[in-house]
Formats: sequence, structure tokens, C-alpha cells
Amino acid sequence: MLSTLANQTPQRMLSHNTQLTRLASTTAKVAAKSQVGKVANESLAGPTSFKTTKVIDTNYENKPSVVILGSGWGAISFLKHIDTKKYNVSIVSPRPYFLFTPLLPSTPVGTVDEKSIIEPVVNFALKKKGNVTYYETAAQEIHPERNTVSVSAVSDITQILTKSHVESKNGDTVPHLKPKDNIEIKYDYLISAVGAEPNTFNIPGVDKYGLFMKEIEHSFQIRQKFAHNLEKANFLPPGDPERKRLLSIVVVGGGPTGVETAGELQDYVTQELKKYSPSLANEVQIHLVEALPIVLNMFDKKLSSYAQNVLQDTSIKLHLKTAVAKVESDHLIAKTKHDDGTVSEETIPFGTLIWATGNKCRPVITNLFKKIPAQNASTRALNVNPFLQVKGSNNIFAIGDNAFIGLPPTAQVAHQEAEYLAKTFDKMAQVKDFHTTLSNRKEKVDLLFEENNFKPFKYIHLGALAYLGSEKAIANITYGKRNLYTGGGAFTFYIWRATYLAMLLSARTRFKVMMDWVKLTFFKRDFFKEM
Amino acid sequence: MLSTLANQTPQRMLSHNTQLTRLASTTAKVAAKSQVGKVANESLAGPTSFKTTKVIDTNYENKPSVVILGSGWGAISFLKHIDTKKYNVSIVSPRPYFLFTPLLPSTPVGTVDEKSIIEPVVNFALKKKGNVTYYETAAQEIHPERNTVSVSAVSDITQILTKSHVESKNGDTVPHLKPKDNIEIKYDYLISAVGAEPNTFNIPGVDKYGLFMKEIEHSFQIRQKFAHNLEKANFLPPGDPERKRLLSIVVVGGGPTGVETAGELQDYVTQELKKYSPSLANEVQIHLVEALPIVLNMFDKKLSSYAQNVLQDTSIKLHLKTAVAKVESDHLIAKTKHDDGTVSEETIPFGTLIWATGNKCRPVITNLFKKIPAQNASTRALNVNPFLQVKGSNNIFAIGDNAFIGLPPTAQVAHQEAEYLAKTFDKMAQVKDFHTTLSNRKEKVDLLFEENNFKPFKYIHLGALAYLGSEKAIANITYGKRNLYTGGGAFTFYIWRATYLAMLLSARTRFKVMMDWVKLTFFKRDFFKEM
Repeated sequence: MLSTLANQTPQRMLSHNTQLTRLASTTAKVAAKSQVGKVANESLAGPTSFKTTKVIDTNYENKPSVVILGSGWGAISFLKHIDTKKYNVSIVSPRPYFLFTPLLPSTPVGTVDEKSIIEPVVNFALKKKGNVTYYETAAQEIHPERNTVSVSAVSDITQILTKSHVESKNGDTVPHLKPKDNIEIKYDYLISAVGAEPNTFNIPGVDKYGLFMKEIEHSFQIRQKFAHNLEKANFLPPGDPERKRLLSIVVVGGGPTGVETAGELQDYVTQELKKYSPSLANEVQIHLVEALPIVLNMFDKKLSSYAQNVLQDTSIKLHLKTAVAKVESDHLIAKTKHDDGTVSEETIPFGTLIWATGNKCRPVITNLFKKIPAQNASTRALNVNPFLQVKGSNNIFAIGDNAFIGLPPTAQVAHQEAEYLAKTFDKMAQVKDFHTTLSNRKEKVDLLFEENNFKPFKYIHLGALAYLGSEKAIANITYGKRNLYTGGGAFTFYIWRATYLAMLLSARTRFKVMMDWVKLTFFKRDFFKEM
Repeated sequence: MLSTLANQTPQRMLSHNTQLTRLASTTAKVAAKSQVGKVANESLAGPTSFKTTKVIDTNYENKPSVVILGSGWGAISFLKHIDTKKYNVSIVSPRPYFLFTPLLPSTPVGTVDEKSIIEPVVNFALKKKGNVTYYETAAQEIHPERNTVSVSAVSDITQILTKSHVESKNGDTVPHLKPKDNIEIKYDYLISAVGAEPNTFNIPGVDKYGLFMKEIEHSFQIRQKFAHNLEKANFLPPGDPERKRLLSIVVVGGGPTGVETAGELQDYVTQELKKYSPSLANEVQIHLVEALPIVLNMFDKKLSSYAQNVLQDTSIKLHLKTAVAKVESDHLIAKTKHDDGTVSEETIPFGTLIWATGNKCRPVITNLFKKIPAQNASTRALNVNPFLQVKGSNNIFAIGDNAFIGLPPTAQVAHQEAEYLAKTFDKMAQVKDFHTTLSNRKEKVDLLFEENNFKPFKYIHLGALAYLGSEKAIANITYGKRNLYTGGGAFTFYIWRATYLAMLLSARTRFKVMMDWVKLTFFKRDFFKEM
């Protein structure tokens, strides 16, 4: 605490203010800058025990620097579409790959391999024409007052630079950072696309005993936990309560992630475990717990009823109108609301608990709420205007789950926002002096966009898909308000597959997923507990 | 130590002797046995603090029980070919999958995925018609005096039983073992195929600072180490000695494993790292250290000279006639013998050290040397007679690297021995009363085989292959003494690939490896440091 306070001495505050003045008009002064592409050592006045803050500036070649936070749907779709001949782009994310989240539920049981649904950020960067730098690190704090992002210790930096830039600068090398450095990355424009994190709703025990289903490591964790429980159960006689507990899997959350995870686990049990361990397979019980009266409530009533029937037919036990009150190491307490208004309590023992409910805002974003007066009332995400600008800022944009514009936090929303924003950036580079005008604009920023005939973001809903297990899926494919296909069953499963193949962001992952599916028609799943 | 001694009280010795008598004629008495297929609790006389020894006997349905130790080339080839309608088979191995070792060097850099070259033991077992049980555990000690193998804590047991057996016995369930149980698995015939383990030749520091190249986990270790070193080097300026050290990879051992590992690493550096980090790629230096004057000495002189030229062209530095004297955390001391008889010493700094020299005998086998008088002089492996019987035993057979019959320790030797031995077992079941006669035979056991017209094992050398990197390979394909193909280069690389595809023991791995290679023609390698 003392050291933090020490950093906030008047000298440092002054230094920040000075810098703020210098940076405020950065975009206008690009050509005149002398420190381009270098790491500026900001030597602070004061005792030598102060940490050095290194400010990394990638404002090369008279092009504004765009810093993207994140490597998910919003961030990578934006990177794919931004014209890097007009901007220098930096990506900051601790996860060095894009993850195709819709297929994550297929990975724990090995229907699809983890490596088949991830694509390194560097591979996307390599396809760009301009200067792109990737920082493998997490954004710790956004400083809108001085247009920087401070980051935690950087584990890797990859720079892909244009030939002309390398030649003119005699080759930029990666900045020489030391673990104890405070590092800040300077931006002319910031694209916040850090997504969200799993929400436990402060229910006791979830963090300690539950597994999430949002990142690749969660897939490994679920597989290992389930495999380990199968092994332990195998040594107990059939009917033993501890064996029953080990073979109980509780999935909380009846959205697509929860339903698909439950369906895939049940597929593995029915199609594979049954072959070499029938007595274990017969005792596995998957529970699906949902607080609403229905699962998959984003689909129309007919489809979600169909889904419920399919799930129950495959012996998944549904607990609807049921909320989890408390989680212990080997069981949870669930409360079910009945039609007559009464509430009953049930104890569900589990060997594996998968928590696939909603998400909440990441700390780096909640911290930003406090710094921008127009965001002080935000709780779930950054409020953005129709041009996806963070309200109260002239150079921070937000897309995906960390942005709120009245749309659900889905991959397709993030993807469309990213494509739209890349086009906006294209136009910003074309309108004369727009960068300068924008950087000097302090309020009613959206009017500036309107005056220059920028079109607001318009979302086109393309529908929803969910896999139910046993090679059945439901789909509702739309184009905005036009309904193109509604269906459920085995044929829809192929539509589900085709759509996901089309949606994959890289050809490599498309090839790999396709081969995983081809493999599955002839061979077993790759369910290896150690890898 | 005390507890071990306590177990050797006269009562226990007596108990063992009694059992020995009973077991010696087991094969003859199969029909009369009352304890078949059950776990017999061997209650020992003496204080209750003694551990209970559980003896697992899988001598079901009047068929002799064959216990296979291992899950490598010998063990799995034998499992594939043994007629399980004539024998009950148990497999004991801590590694739950077969590993296609020839392609292991392709996995650290992601040319081929780890999962593509392993096949679960259970999948092989599922293809058999009879009773097959797999114990996931390591054999600790072989007790030829009572025909059992003691095992360490069992992590999993999978039983695949014939329908008739399940019905007659009302379904065998997995034995209920407790962690503190001493477990012994009884055999009528033991097939020892545990392979060998990496040999450090007691050179100081190798165990602590080197990585091996023999199992799947070694591939993960090498990838993580190399990726981590690349990241650390990335923060240091070009030319920095520490950067140079981090980017130095030393491979010790000029056999196919060492050469292929070096070649694959160089491929990754040249074909991929160079694209997004040219300055790192240019500074990576791979060293190949070999004590002999030549690498790949199993090939004829012309081919190994060609190999050396290819390696040097791809900038791998060869250190021939060089032995490692000592390994420290960041460098090793190598001694090179010169033609004039002098020896020079060199310090080679390294970031990654890969130790791919010879192998040595596993402890479970060296322990057996002491128990069988005819093996007392063995050091490297069990001496076997021309019928692959362990000399001095009438019911233990050995195949693969833990058996010595004057052949090199290669996959093709193990594979051919296993196929031969499965045929021998077929014939043993056909010759009237052979099992009984064999179990009563105390000496000159090989004569019994000869009298019954069993043919001795005959090895047919099919040649050797090695990949050199940059899509070049050398091959010498033979059929015994007939030379079918000798060549080196890009065309031979396709022969190398085709041969390995044909050699893969399961269709699933064949499909996956083929797809990995197809993928590689269009996309980058899957080099993900975390997985």
C-alpha cells in the first residue's frame, strides 16, 4: 500500500499531467514526433526506489496507433478487418490465441480437439500488411487521462513490421523490458474487447468446487475431473453411494453452453464408455439445473420444448425453476420453485460440477467506470453510443461482451460490431483531418460522426443454434426479422455443423474441425485424461 | 525397511511356499479350481498390522491366464495377435496407450499431434473376442517362485469379458482394491515387454538438466522449454550472450531419434519461427553431439555421409567423436577426440538439452536377474532362448527391448518377436497336454519346444529409415539380406512417410497422422506452448 502511495507523489502527478497535455494532441502531431517506435524511459523525479515506468509507443510512420484489448470474437474480428496500411495496430491479451467458443462444449470429451478451435493471434497478425505488434499480457488498468494502458508483466511480444518500416528504422527490436518495470502502452485509439468472466453470483462454494466452461483450460479441467472420477468409481461396487456421487455430473445453466456440454458428455457416456465399461456408463447421471422454467429460452417455445424432450430421452435429468443456493465439496443445495408458490430444497451429490451461467464484467472495465464520468452508473458493461464509442470518451471504443448497446452478449454481436468498427476506422482515415478534429472534440462526440455521415451500428440477427446430444440440434436461422429456417433434429445437426464450419475464423481451424468430425464417423473420441 | 522384513516372517514364507506348490500345477488343474475370477484375500498369520495381500487371478473358463507387462511395441503387437479364445489375457502397464515411437520426434514442434500417435490399450482390448483385463499400474516385482507380479497402486482397471463368461459368472466386476492393499496378479504365463528406460550413463547433471525423448510427456516438456526460452530470449537484444544461450539447443545422440528431433526443430525454426520472428530464428543454433565418428551408423557409409551433409546444410552443428563429460544448468562440457589422439574440451551453453542416447534395463527386470539363476549374469536384458523363453524359467517369455537374443533394441524386432510369440501360443494350445507338460518341465525347456516341432524365432530385417529435416530422409529397405531400396532425399521422404503410415498399429492413428501431414501442406504447425 505504501509503495502505491509513494507512486502518487506530487512529482509523479505533475509528470502525468505534463504527459497528458503532450498526448492529447498526439494524433495531430504524428509527423512531428521524435520518439516514434521507441520505448521512452519516463524517468521520474524523486527517490531512486521508485519504479521506472516504460511507455511503449507504436505510433510509427505517421499512422495513428490503435491498441486492441483482447483476443476473442470482437478483438480478432476487428484485427482481421482493420486496414493496417492506415493504422499501426497493437493487440494486448494474455491469451495468445483466438478461441472459437461455440465449439468449446465439444472439446472435453474429445469430439473436437482443443487445438482445432484455437488460432494463434500471431497467425492473424501475419496476414496483415502493416505494422502489428502483439503483447502477451493482461491489461491491468486503462488510463484515459493519459491515453495509456498499463499491463502486467509481459510474457512475450511479437512484432510484425512492414518492410519499409524495418528499413527506415533499421529494424525495430522488441523493447527490452525487465520484470520490475511498470509498462504502459500508449494509444491514439483504444478498442476495448476484453469480454467478460464467469459469474458465480456470489453463491458460496462455486468458485472453490465448480468448474467453468469458458476457456480452453476449462475443457482440460472437466476432462481430467470426469476421467479421474470414472477411475475412482470403478473400484467401488455398483450401487455404492460414493460411486453414484462420483458418477453424478451437475451442469448449472440451461443456455446453449450448458445444454451442449451436458449433451456432449452424455454422448461420450452412451457411445463410448458403455462399450468398455457398461456398468459405469449405466450409473452416470447428468443433471441440468436452470433457474427459468425452460432451457434455451432464446429459442421459440416449440424448439425449446423439443430440446427438453431430447435431453430427457437421453437420460439427462432436468431441474427447472431451480436455483443453486450453496455448493459444498461433494454436493449442492438446490431450491426449486413450484407452481403453487412453494419452494422445495434438494441435495444433489456431484462428482463434477460445471458452472455455465452468465458472465460478469472484468475488473479492468469496472475500474474504467469510475474514471469516466459518463460511465459512473455502468455496472455490466461500457455504455457505447451508436458508433460504438464509449460514452464520455473521444478515443475509446468498445465491442463485444464488455460493451452495452442493448444487445445480448453473443459471438455474432461481437463479430458484427467488430466488422462495423473496422469500416468506421476506414472512413475515419478518409475524412480530412478527422483524427485531429476528433481528438480535440470534448463532448457530443456522436454528433461529429453524424455530421460526417457515418452510419450508426445496425445489428442483423442471424439466429441461434444449439446441439442437444445424440446427433440432434435445434436451429432458428434468420436474417434480421426474416425467418429462414426453423427446425430441430438430425438434419438440423448438419446445419449446425455447416454453420459452425462457415463461422470459424481461420482456414486451419476449419480444416481441423472438419477432420475431427470425419474422424468421428469412423473412430472413437480422443478422450485422453492426461492431455 | 522394518515393515519389509516383517513381511518376510516364516509364516509368510510358508504361506508362499504352499501357494507355490498349488500354483506350479495351475495350468493342469484349471478345471478343478474353485477361486477362478475372484480376488482371493490371502489372510496372513501374524499381527494385524501386516498388510493384506490381494492376489488377483484371471484364470477364467478353463483357459490359462497370460499376463502381459507393458504397452509398447512388444506388448501391444502380442495383444493384437494372441488368440484370446484360447487364453485369458491381462495387460499391466502404467501407460494406458500404445505410443508409435518412430514419429515421436515430429511431435514437439507440432508437425504431428501427440494424440495422433497414441492409441488407448482399451481400444486394442475391445477388438479381442475373449476375456481381456487392463490394469493401469506399473509392475513392481516379478515373483517367479509363486507366479505372480506385484504392482503398485492400481489407478484403473478395465475388464472386457466375453458374454458367456459374464453370464456364467453373473458378471465380474472390477476387484475392490484399497490403496493400502498389496496387490499381486497371478499368471500361468508371463510376457515381459516392459521395454527400457533412458540411460544417462551416470553423467553428472543429465537427469537434472536434460530432457529425454522417449515418452509423450517428453514431447510436451521439450515444446514448453523451447517456447519458454524463445520468449525469454525475445526480451534480450540480438547478440546478447544470454539470448544466444537461450536459443541454443543441444541434442545428444546421433541415432535416428536424435537426428530426427534436431531436424524437426530446425524445420520449425526455418519454416515458421522465421516468419514472425526472423531475428530470433536467425540466432537459434542446434547442436548434435555424437560419440561415434558418424551419425546414423546403422546405415551404410554413403547414406550417413549424405545425412551429415543435409544436417550441416540446414545449419545444424555436428560435434562428432564427442562425449559429454558433465552437464550444468546452463552449459555442458564436451570432450572431442581428434584424429591425432588428442582430446579437446569445449563448453557448450544451452537453453534446451535433449538426451537421446541409449537405453538401460528397467529395475523390475534387473531385480528379476537375481531371482533366476540362469539370469544372474544378465545386465542389459533378459537372456531368451530361440523360442523367446526367459532362460531358467518355463513360463516367462520376454520380447522387445527387455529381451536379449543378439538383435538391436528396435521397434521392428519387438514387433516381429511379438507376432512370432503369439503364433507359438497358438500352437501351445493345439498340442495335447502341452501346458501341463511345460509347467512340469524344470530344465532344458527349449528341447520340449523342439521335440514338438516349434520353429525358433527368425528375424527378418526390413531396413532402416531416418528423417533429416527440410523434407529429406534416408532409407534402406531390405527383406532380410535382399536390398530393395537405398536412397536419400526428397523422394525418400515420401517413402519414409508411407512406411510409417503402414506401420501404425491402429486405423485411427493412421487417419490422424495422414491428416496432420495433409494439414501441414496448407497450414502452419500446431505449436502451442500451453498444450
